[in-house]
Amino acid sequence: MTEAQLPIALDAMGGDNAPGEIVRGAVRVVRETGVTILLVGRREVIEPALQAAVGASADDRLRIVDARDVIAMDEHPANAVRAKRDASIVRTCALVAEGKASAAVSAGNSGAMLAAALFTVKRIPGVARPAIGTTFPSAHGQTFVLDVGANTDCKAEWLAQFALMGDVYARTMQDVTEPRIALLSNGEEAEKGSDLVQAAHRLIAQLPIRFVGNIEGKDIFTGAADVVVTDGFTGNIALKTAEGVGEFLFASISAQARSSFTGKIGGALLKPKLRPLQDRADYRKTGGALLLGVAGEVVIAHGRSDAEAIVNAIAVADRAARKDVSGAIAISITPRSVEVNDVVSI
Amino acid sequence: MTEAQLPIALDAMGGDNAPGEIVRGAVRVVRETGVTILLVGRREVIEPALQAAVGASADDRLRIVDARDVIAMDEHPANAVRAKRDASIVRTCALVAEGKASAAVSAGNSGAMLAAALFTVKRIPGVARPAIGTTFPSAHGQTFVLDVGANTDCKAEWLAQFALMGDVYARTMQDVTEPRIALLSNGEEAEKGSDLVQAAHRLIAQLPIRFVGNIEGKDIFTGAADVVVTDGFTGNIALKTAEGVGEFLFASISAQARSSFTGKIGGALLKPKLRPLQDRADYRKTGGALLLGVAGEVVIAHGRSDAEAIVNAIAVADRAARKDVSGAIAISITPRSVEVNDVVSI
Repeated sequence: MTEAQLPIALDAMGGDNAPGEIVRGAVRVVRETGVTILLVGRREVIEPALQAAVGASADDRLRIVDARDVIAMDEHPANAVRAKRDASIVRTCALVAEGKASAAVSAGNSGAMLAAALFTVKRIPGVARPAIGTTFPSAHGQTFVLDVGANTDCKAEWLAQFALMGDVYARTMQDVTEPRIALLSNGEEAEKGSDLVQAAHRLIAQLPIRFVGNIEGKDIFTGAADVVVTDGFTGNIALKTAEGVGEFLFASISAQARSSFTGKIGGALLKPKLRPLQDRADYRKTGGALLLGVAGEVVIAHGRSDAEAIVNAIAVADRAARKDVSGAIAISITPRSVEVNDVVSI
Repeated sequence: MTEAQLPIALDAMGGDNAPGEIVRGAVRVVRETGVTILLVGRREVIEPALQAAVGASADDRLRIVDARDVIAMDEHPANAVRAKRDASIVRTCALVAEGKASAAVSAGNSGAMLAAALFTVKRIPGVARPAIGTTFPSAHGQTFVLDVGANTDCKAEWLAQFALMGDVYARTMQDVTEPRIALLSNGEEAEKGSDLVQAAHRLIAQLPIRFVGNIEGKDIFTGAADVVVTDGFTGNIALKTAEGVGEFLFASISAQARSSFTGKIGGALLKPKLRPLQDRADYRKTGGALLLGVAGEVVIAHGRSDAEAIVNAIAVADRAARKDVSGAIAISITPRSVEVNDVVSI
């Protein structure tokens, strides 16, 4: 971290626990790291939250950028962004577009964050559609899955670009030298899958990346690939299903541990051991999803983010900014996308 | 169980653990219940497996039906069924079509089982596409999800029929009086989802069932619905993802429990408590998936089925036969499908 590093713009009004937990997360970051943060939102709301969080020792590495509007979690994303130019979520992204922040983070309306990023930061030339990518825990570390929600109906060409963007992510963010890229399908054989997956398979196989073919949902967790490519509808189902199983199993284990004396002892002994695992499987704590394909670093944190989740989301944003992930994608997509366009006919 | 109940046809050659575990499962069933079983496959392979399993006390409620061919797990389903009319999987289904068995069960090539069922038992008139349905564990019991793999690319009309078939399943197999039917999507709002899901939503909303709208992947496990409708590609991703998370978490818990002395004690105490939960989340043990939409009861067991899984799969088949699920679907689909056809335009 150098002095020259720009601050990170953080939407202080976004998410179920805003502004309290958001501001507390920001305070922890500036205390524990060298990162500077711009808290974006209504000054009269942020100031008391900030005072409650920092107490006497205010920190000049936490600055407020006033934004008068707020986009609610249930507002129509594109309409809200169009109507509320001075919304905290729009201003947060605009700070990146204006070169005043190195990255944007929000736990607010994720559709609005996507729309605001497209509206201000804008798409990288050559990228058909930006994708939201997030990490799943796996046997040997992490698996990066994209798209998990930006595009419900995809074309094969878009999935091929997701493969290229995922390759860049794994190289830059996860320091994987030659990332193994897989396509999510209902069977490992190349001829398995929907029409979309079969078409995408043929395109991805021609790209200059290490394509390991199709994998099934269970393989996300075995470390069979570093990057898993899918459309935003399927990726969202996989993400939410994984979240659901995790919550169901941990709730069941807790209930069982409480159900008897022996269980009580077992549960008490096991609890501190389960916690790190539970955290690893908890998508509120994995730091948020990076929006790939826009010309700047944009992180979408979970709507239920607490202070810890915000700390992790800012860490992702900070790393993405330092690694210049969007710059690397711009280099990767532009020359290669021509090839993709040549072979595709949709 | 009455004397008049027909036997259940069981493919003794199908699955990773055939014939040993399959035959052992069959032996357990006839010893513990009144069910009669036809073991279908090569007589010279089944006889020694049967002798090893039953020892001295042979049972005349276990009979062998000779079938000379076997379809391997990796064969092309439709081609193999067309070429091998005397394959165990085809003969198993044919016994149902011929009225000699009340239900068919196989842990073999699931695509071949589907093809064999369509070829012999045949589609119920009015059903566009049969679907594979299976139960997921939930907070309050079980959630039935269909389709989990029969149809990778679906039309909205098919999903509407899956909703009707799922409704019948929950009423007959799970004794739910007024099943709550939901559509799997990437958001709860009616306007969320892929083009397919949005079109299916409009169709299902017009059906005479209790449609509770869209649910997300995590809601499969909260008991928010009794039946969850999806296309076979997405359903398969959800099923395999759930399987993957379960295996990952249980493996991690075991590893953590082994990692220290305290952990050892905690692990040892918790192990017997975890087992039933682990079994509940293990898709090898949930008894196999019912094929809905064909004119007879056909159960597709997990390829990795052990004897216990076979016992559970036979229990599903036996219950489906006694409840006449396919007969109830025939009544439900035929008059209503006209309505569906009237409103749809694909």
